[in-house]
Parts: sequence; C-alpha cells; structure tokens
Amino acid sequence: MGSTANDRRVLGIDPGLTRCGVAVVDGAPGRKVSLRFIGVVQTATNLSIEQRLLGLEQGIEEIMAEHNPDVVAVERVFSQHNVRTAMATAQAAAVALLIAARSGIDVAMHTPTEVKAAVTGSGRADKAQVAAMVTRVLALSSAPKPADAADAAAIAICQLWRGAATARLEAARKRSVRERSAAVR
Amino acid sequence: MGSTANDRRVLGIDPGLTRCGVAVVDGAPGRKVSLRFIGVVQTATNLSIEQRLLGLEQGIEEIMAEHNPDVVAVERVFSQHNVRTAMATAQAAAVALLIAARSGIDVAMHTPTEVKAAVTGSGRADKAQVAAMVTRVLALSSAPKPADAADAAAIAICQLWRGAATARLEAARKRSVRERSAAVR
Repeated sequence: MGSTANDRRVLGIDPGLTRCGVAVVDGAPGRKVSLRFIGVVQTATNLSIEQRLLGLEQGIEEIMAEHNPDVVAVERVFSQHNVRTAMATAQAAAVALLIAARSGIDVAMHTPTEVKAAVTGSGRADKAQVAAMVTRVLALSSAPKPADAADAAAIAICQLWRGAATARLEAARKRSVRERSAAVR
Repeated sequence: MGSTANDRRVLGIDPGLTRCGVAVVDGAPGRKVSLRFIGVVQTATNLSIEQRLLGLEQGIEEIMAEHNPDVVAVERVFSQHNVRTAMATAQAAAVALLIAARSGIDVAMHTPTEVKAAVTGSGRADKAQVAAMVTRVLALSSAPKPADAADAAAIAICQLWRGAATARLEAARKRSVRERSAAVR
C-alpha cells in the first residue's frame, strides 16, 4: 500500500487564471493510486494579467518544490466557446509548461476526451461521472472541490494510466522492430 | 539627438512562438526616437511546446538583461482566424508578460489597431504603410526585416507616443480633480 520505489509521481494541472486546478498523485498501473495534494491556485480577477501570471507561477512553483513530481500533465487547451477564456487558459497552461521545462521535468498533455476516457471508460462522460471516478480511484470519502481540483486529479490519473499504456506500446513497437531487423539479418 | 535623461526605453514585443519580434527604442514625445536593438527570437517548430516556451523565455530575458527597458509593450492578442495560431500567440505573450512582472517592469498592451493608428494616423493602415512609417521614424535606410521585427518596433513607438498621451491625460484628470475639490472647499 502507498508509494513504492516503482511509483511515479504526477502533478496534474487543469489550467486556468482564476482557478488553476492542481493535484499530485503517486501510483503505477495495477496499483493503488494515492493522492498527495489537491487544490487550486487562485489569482484575483482585479489584478493585471501579468500579475496574475506571476501569482500563478509562484503558486505552481511552490507545489513543485514541495512535491517534486516526475511528470507534469497538463490539459491540452482547445478552442472554447469564449475566446477570452481560451486565451487565459492557454496562457495559464504556458506558465505550467514553462516551469516544467525550466526544471527539466517531463511534460505530457492530454485532451479532455482522453482524460474522460482514461478515467471513466467513455470520452463523453460528464463532469459528475469523472468526479465520481476520481473519488473512487483515490479512495476519498467525497469528491474533491472545487471542480477544477477534481479535474486536475483526473488529468494526473490519466497520465499514470495512459502514460504506462503508451510506454508499453512503445516497448512493444521497439521489440517488434528489433525482431524484424533480426529477421532481416 | 540621441538618448537623454528624460528618454524612456521601451521593449516592444510582437508575440509569436515561431518568430517573436523584439525591438528596443529610446525616446520621448516630440523628440527623436532611436532604435537600440531589433530582431526576432525564433524557436524551432520541431521542438515540444514547453521547449519552445523555454527558448523564448531565454531569448527575451537576454534582451531584457542587456537593454534594461523601462516598459515592456506587448501587442494585445485577439481571436485570429486560426485558433492554433491564436493559442500560440497568447502563450508567447504570456512568457513576455511573466518575465516583465517577475522583473518588476511596467507592462503595457496595445491592440493592432492602436499601434497602426499611433504610427500611421490610421487604424486601418496596411503592413507596408506601418513598415514605411517605422523606417521613417527610426531614420533607417530600409524597413526592418522580418515583418515581425518591424511590428515590434511599431508597438514600441506606439507605447512611447500613446504612453505619453495617456500620462498627459491622467495628469490633466488629476489636476481637474484637484481644482474641483479646491472649489468645493
């Protein structure tokens, strides 16, 4: 139970300027996933954009320094209904990506559909279903609040599970290439 | 001629991930504007987004460290035809804003229309007209290349001229408030 030497620690980020969801989970495929930290970094809407970006940077850097993740997983930003919101989300994601790159920490990005599919089995699951699965996987007594925090946890879980699946596929591909090149020789 | 104690030094930024235009100008209203530096920070399109943001951060930080501007003026990003481009532009702008905030340097943002109007007198001027005015104002023998660099110079010139106009309006407003409150007493 709990974290072992094979566990990976993932910082999941649901980017946003007003409330940026952050969750740190430990785990590995087939083993218990445990929650280390969950919350939101908030910046006041009456601050200038550059002060908000700076506040977000400081918040995420503190969490990174405290939890030292192996990977940072960020929700991939797409066009949203509101262009202004999409821009702010893209900028918040940029801050998270920049901090990870500066620290030499691996980055992964997942679309909302990938996250939902990884956590619930369906890419079209609704928010309530995602929150229910996050609550179950992390063995919590109730869903994390606010929704941005629960979403960050879902992204981190997606990375643990999908990242492992991608690594297995990659290993299988390399093995198959080796076998084929052995056959050619 | 040249820079004086009253001149302001502006770093103008035309945000972009592939080519980010940067220009440093010195000047004050009614005086010669002089170009200190002009160029582009480029990041390779085959790098990951986080490595590109990091490369941009390093490039802008070097220019800031070398030229020590009083203000950073960034083109305000709006919806563009291509959502992917708009996101990348917003993220590049976020990097510039973040660096300025971290260094405690004032930030200003201007829309493309404001920049064109400040430099050419018309908010609907085309690229060639803006480049021609930048060339004339900076007393260059030919237009700066690439276009992103010329645009960054236009943003910096806009900040010198508009910033001064805004400061005058602000001073006039304060004076008028003082006069009114003196009249009330």
